[in-house]
Amino acid sequence: MSQRLGQATIMMDNAVSIRSWASVVGKKEGEGPFGDCFDYVDKDDRFGQDSFEKAESAMQGLAVQTALEKCKHTPSDLSFMFGGDLLNQCIGTSFGIGDFNVPFLGIYGACSTIAEGILLAALTVDSGAGDIVAAVTSSHFCTAERQYRFPLEYGGQRTPTSQWTATASGAVILKRNSASPFVRAVTIGKIEDKGIKDANNMGAAMAPAAYSTIKQFLSDTKKSPDEFDHIVTGDLGSVGSRILVELLHRDGIEIADKHLDCGCMLFDPENQDVHAGGSGCGCSASLLAGHFLPELKSGKLKNILFAATGALLSTTSSQQGMTIPSISHLIWLSSEIGL
Amino acid sequence: MSQRLGQATIMMDNAVSIRSWASVVGKKEGEGPFGDCFDYVDKDDRFGQDSFEKAESAMQGLAVQTALEKCKHTPSDLSFMFGGDLLNQCIGTSFGIGDFNVPFLGIYGACSTIAEGILLAALTVDSGAGDIVAAVTSSHFCTAERQYRFPLEYGGQRTPTSQWTATASGAVILKRNSASPFVRAVTIGKIEDKGIKDANNMGAAMAPAAYSTIKQFLSDTKKSPDEFDHIVTGDLGSVGSRILVELLHRDGIEIADKHLDCGCMLFDPENQDVHAGGSGCGCSASLLAGHFLPELKSGKLKNILFAATGALLSTTSSQQGMTIPSISHLIWLSSEIGL
Repeated sequence: MSQRLGQATIMMDNAVSIRSWASVVGKKEGEGPFGDCFDYVDKDDRFGQDSFEKAESAMQGLAVQTALEKCKHTPSDLSFMFGGDLLNQCIGTSFGIGDFNVPFLGIYGACSTIAEGILLAALTVDSGAGDIVAAVTSSHFCTAERQYRFPLEYGGQRTPTSQWTATASGAVILKRNSASPFVRAVTIGKIEDKGIKDANNMGAAMAPAAYSTIKQFLSDTKKSPDEFDHIVTGDLGSVGSRILVELLHRDGIEIADKHLDCGCMLFDPENQDVHAGGSGCGCSASLLAGHFLPELKSGKLKNILFAATGALLSTTSSQQGMTIPSISHLIWLSSEIGL
Repeated sequence: MSQRLGQATIMMDNAVSIRSWASVVGKKEGEGPFGDCFDYVDKDDRFGQDSFEKAESAMQGLAVQTALEKCKHTPSDLSFMFGGDLLNQCIGTSFGIGDFNVPFLGIYGACSTIAEGILLAALTVDSGAGDIVAAVTSSHFCTAERQYRFPLEYGGQRTPTSQWTATASGAVILKRNSASPFVRAVTIGKIEDKGIKDANNMGAAMAPAAYSTIKQFLSDTKKSPDEFDHIVTGDLGSVGSRILVELLHRDGIEIADKHLDCGCMLFDPENQDVHAGGSGCGCSASLLAGHFLPELKSGKLKNILFAATGALLSTTSSQQGMTIPSISHLIWLSSEIGL
């Protein structure tokens, strides 16, 4: 049986390996500081398709296909997969992985989706419900802009606190008793809502969710930030990151020298004009697959906490003057088996 | 460890009970053939709120609260919960259950959501990842009409194959080693897409998904329809139901005298003017909680297959001329523990 710790953390009972992973990104992401880490960089963000929505689906399908090829599996080897994205009704995923003919469970966690997917994949692989289970997500700047904000042609001005939705997808494949890196534990986040209403300041809305989940993990496991190489969030951006560090500091938890945020990493803040940083489901998913998992695999990193964050708003909720509920799910990833 | 059967079915290893349930519906649903079964019928579908979206959230919160009260639990007793709905970015759920302060995992399966939620709740309760786990979903006629179709004020004509989105919510609470009814097995559906593009004929789009999943379950478990009191789908409506029965008949699987569809049950086809029947996440969820679970509890029903169906389209995918991918997840529910 799985071992529950405290209110929201579950320790793995078996060696749950992240067996394979892949990252597929757009042109701007390929020109960023981590451009060389990704498996595929598209030249024009269209991925050979005639609409941006179809491009996002193609990107997501390519991420899963690439992750499968890396570990010499085919779709039919997957027990099932988890996936979701930012588009209304998660069509990026339905059209992206529908052709794989694999049992599928749709998830929605906004930009926390890859963490939710890994969390559920880890729990089901650990229990034996699945043998080989995939998790995938994506976001696309052009589909997100026209759905959430303005048509691209409008050329709307962006506020200083706004973030740039990454054109990126990340896929991972989990399996029991394979090699490093391992999922050691997961913490399921709660919906946090501190009353932020500015849809152009999602970092501020999401920081309390990351704060709550990281604190919950440390409390449930009685661990300290010192035991981890990095505490990685995604995608708080520069505004949300400052708030997170400050909120934890007020509770006597110091993470300033451990904290990295995928939203602050994906783009060059000096030269890529993304204001408060990157965002979108694909931001943390692509950096996890492109950067952090390889560093864990090589042993360069030993233990990280990966807490992706999602803002659970819609244009309708914003138009009705509602606040922005947010959530963050956390995965403890390790190069060590630890059982 | 969980016992996998065939490609997509997982048998429960423990007695996984549906400990409690609740259904909350709108006025029209309360006037239908099952109106007396529901825990709460609202008088004007507004649930005391000033927008229909807030009403949907209030309805969903009330369903969870009622299910908890029935089994004398409070939100803090829940290990975590699964939830989702039809609204863009699932805001019905984020605002509906955010205040419960419970670890939360968002899911998206369109009208199959309650089956996906029970499936994941059952797997995580069975493995011990969760002790007491809830699943909830909802739909609201007025929020769905204006999001997917037309403003209500427009008074658009509905086609003969169209279905009526139910204003309804269903919540269930799962626990190990409690009383009947039990989840005996689950089958995870695949995305099926037979090229249907008519968003006013979702029954036809979803029937192949129900066909695929029911056939998968029967094949994985080597069971026949005769072993079940009913094979329940939701929400194929009258058009999709005929297609499902015919598709299985062509494979020599006869379910005509076992088949019930929640879309055909919720409203009176003669007097409630719903064309091909009811639909929406809440349709099958409310009938499951209002009718089928009590009948299993009382022993009137012994075994049913519950295969909720979802159409994974969005207005954007329809506007781009895309087909309607669909999915169906199946739960074998039993009054017998069967271990």
